[in-house]
Amino acid sequence: MVMNGFEIIKRDGVSRLGRLKTNHGIIETPVFMPVGTQGTVKAITHKDLKEAGFRMILANAYHLYLRPGDTLIKDMGGIHRFAGWDGPILTDSGGYQLFSLGVLRKITEQGVIFQSHIDGSKHFLTPERVVEIQENIGSDICMTLDECVKYPSTYEYTRESTELTTNWARRCREYKKNGDYMLFGIIQGGFYRDLRIKSAVEIVGMDFDGYAIGGLSVGEPKGVMWEMVDEVIDILPSDKPRYLMGLGFPEDLIEGVRKGIDMFDCVIPTRLARNGNLFTWSGRINIKNAKYTKDERPVDEMCSCYTCRTYSRAYLRHLLVSHELTSFYLNTLHNIHFYGVFMEKIRESIEEGRFEEFYREFKIRWKGGETNDD
Amino acid sequence: MVMNGFEIIKRDGVSRLGRLKTNHGIIETPVFMPVGTQGTVKAITHKDLKEAGFRMILANAYHLYLRPGDTLIKDMGGIHRFAGWDGPILTDSGGYQLFSLGVLRKITEQGVIFQSHIDGSKHFLTPERVVEIQENIGSDICMTLDECVKYPSTYEYTRESTELTTNWARRCREYKKNGDYMLFGIIQGGFYRDLRIKSAVEIVGMDFDGYAIGGLSVGEPKGVMWEMVDEVIDILPSDKPRYLMGLGFPEDLIEGVRKGIDMFDCVIPTRLARNGNLFTWSGRINIKNAKYTKDERPVDEMCSCYTCRTYSRAYLRHLLVSHELTSFYLNTLHNIHFYGVFMEKIRESIEEGRFEEFYREFKIRWKGGETNDD
Repeated sequence: MVMNGFEIIKRDGVSRLGRLKTNHGIIETPVFMPVGTQGTVKAITHKDLKEAGFRMILANAYHLYLRPGDTLIKDMGGIHRFAGWDGPILTDSGGYQLFSLGVLRKITEQGVIFQSHIDGSKHFLTPERVVEIQENIGSDICMTLDECVKYPSTYEYTRESTELTTNWARRCREYKKNGDYMLFGIIQGGFYRDLRIKSAVEIVGMDFDGYAIGGLSVGEPKGVMWEMVDEVIDILPSDKPRYLMGLGFPEDLIEGVRKGIDMFDCVIPTRLARNGNLFTWSGRINIKNAKYTKDERPVDEMCSCYTCRTYSRAYLRHLLVSHELTSFYLNTLHNIHFYGVFMEKIRESIEEGRFEEFYREFKIRWKGGETNDD
Repeated sequence: MVMNGFEIIKRDGVSRLGRLKTNHGIIETPVFMPVGTQGTVKAITHKDLKEAGFRMILANAYHLYLRPGDTLIKDMGGIHRFAGWDGPILTDSGGYQLFSLGVLRKITEQGVIFQSHIDGSKHFLTPERVVEIQENIGSDICMTLDECVKYPSTYEYTRESTELTTNWARRCREYKKNGDYMLFGIIQGGFYRDLRIKSAVEIVGMDFDGYAIGGLSVGEPKGVMWEMVDEVIDILPSDKPRYLMGLGFPEDLIEGVRKGIDMFDCVIPTRLARNGNLFTWSGRINIKNAKYTKDERPVDEMCSCYTCRTYSRAYLRHLLVSHELTSFYLNTLHNIHFYGVFMEKIRESIEEGRFEEFYREFKIRWKGGETNDD
């Protein structure tokens, strides 16, 4: 078993090529973690993920806690054995779900009282219990419990919330002690520069295995978001992994890497796929568009995924408008493959000291999204 | 290109091992055709189907006619090119859909007037047009237009309906002329022995490339169904393929083969999979059952499919109760694999002259379904 840890093997500007050592193998960074809420990325299989170059996924502690329950997963030998996934798993703490799913909840200094979105049952989660849940699940990387504030929120609310997140982070850190897994602290601070800095300084002071920037991409303008990242990135220790939570589009990932971020997670490639939004090297297309009705080309001429090797845009469009389940599979497979190749190209460009060139070329080629219906 | 046709290469009792020669390759019979309504079997991919041993599928002319339209498919080079499937495709004529989907319709001697189940638009299909649609789609095996009578129906209604089916079959046969594909006639006759016999004699008299027994498994008792098969099976020419439409469970397939049937199609393995009904060599289990909550075994210890090699019953249950799309994929993959192996074993046993032994062993082992909730 390797020792948990992080090693930077190459720098290109502030961008870093790293090795994240976990109980389930070594992961090259910058890494994008597909979201596998239940331990499985929606619509596809473990084999498909691996073929697309992914060895690490994110699972949702909140969902797994409610169903099938963290103790059942523990009894079954942990999430890796239960879900049949042998690569590293990072679990979020549930903070984001508690503050975004429209869950009925009450926050106290002690923890969060909430009602299950599945059956309305009442639950009480403390920072300690949240780490215990992730221990029971058997995560390679656990996250502290945080409060994710809305955009916009008042200074006063954000200040108090950030203080709460700091206190909860300290309790998570204390609870972990010598647990044989990694625990990452989450920086909050809403959209106030001083609170972001305060949060970063306090969280970094607790000596976590890695640091996440949370509470972003919740509706704020992109410019504001990147300002918040810029405020804190240099406070984060250079020798620890940096994780930008909940992002994003390819243009976000490459921007994040350019600022020195090592880890990302997002539902975008999978959720958008189910909606017919497919990535190409010049931007996103929406396969539902009538203009693809007789388009015999693959989604992307340069893509080597099974979907592009086998199916035309016309047929993928037909499957989607006919509500065929295979459509979810094929579309997800393509987007995940695209993200896999994209991250691989980012890592290669850092390794070869030409990330800036890759970044510029990408920006020229990239047209963003074809439609706004995602 | 091989000549369309059928060749029997081995007999074991009345069971037959055959070779069905189509424009898209030679298929060994007895064959089970998974249903790929839109040219793709629901929830899985072409690759998965081939890996499970399937080279031939059934597509629904009715659905493809309504969306994306048979002329669009023709413009796109036919269904094989459009859907990216290079094996043989048999299309049903739409008769079954017209009489089962709750479609608003009016039957005349000339044809069927009906409303689309998608958008309510009005359509008129004649027997000639139905063959033309299948030609446009590019089917390897087309089916005649028939009326599928309900169970029970009066003798008078069934007699008139059977006459209509015969007349329609004749018009389909005349329309085909020298088309370079196969056209199968469908025997109806409801649940009256004399009408079944009359239908068989009349349809066989028209010299089709193969003969289907239709209108069965529509709610009648199993005993009644097999009686109807027994009445007509010897009327069907021994050197032509015999196709029992819309069946069925493994116990139905083996029974059909034992009576000399060569071809089957059914939604059972795929539809039941989406419901959590999974096949094992001792019968069907329902993975939703609470008793599988902590069951670490694969669905079937003897199964070599990806699902059984990778996932436990407990986890498959969790994916299903969590409404994860991957559940549809994994369950369908397993059932299709099971049917693939099952048909392969049937063919092997005929080839080795021990079909009856295989049949007896199957009957001893087979417990049918665990639950009735499918």
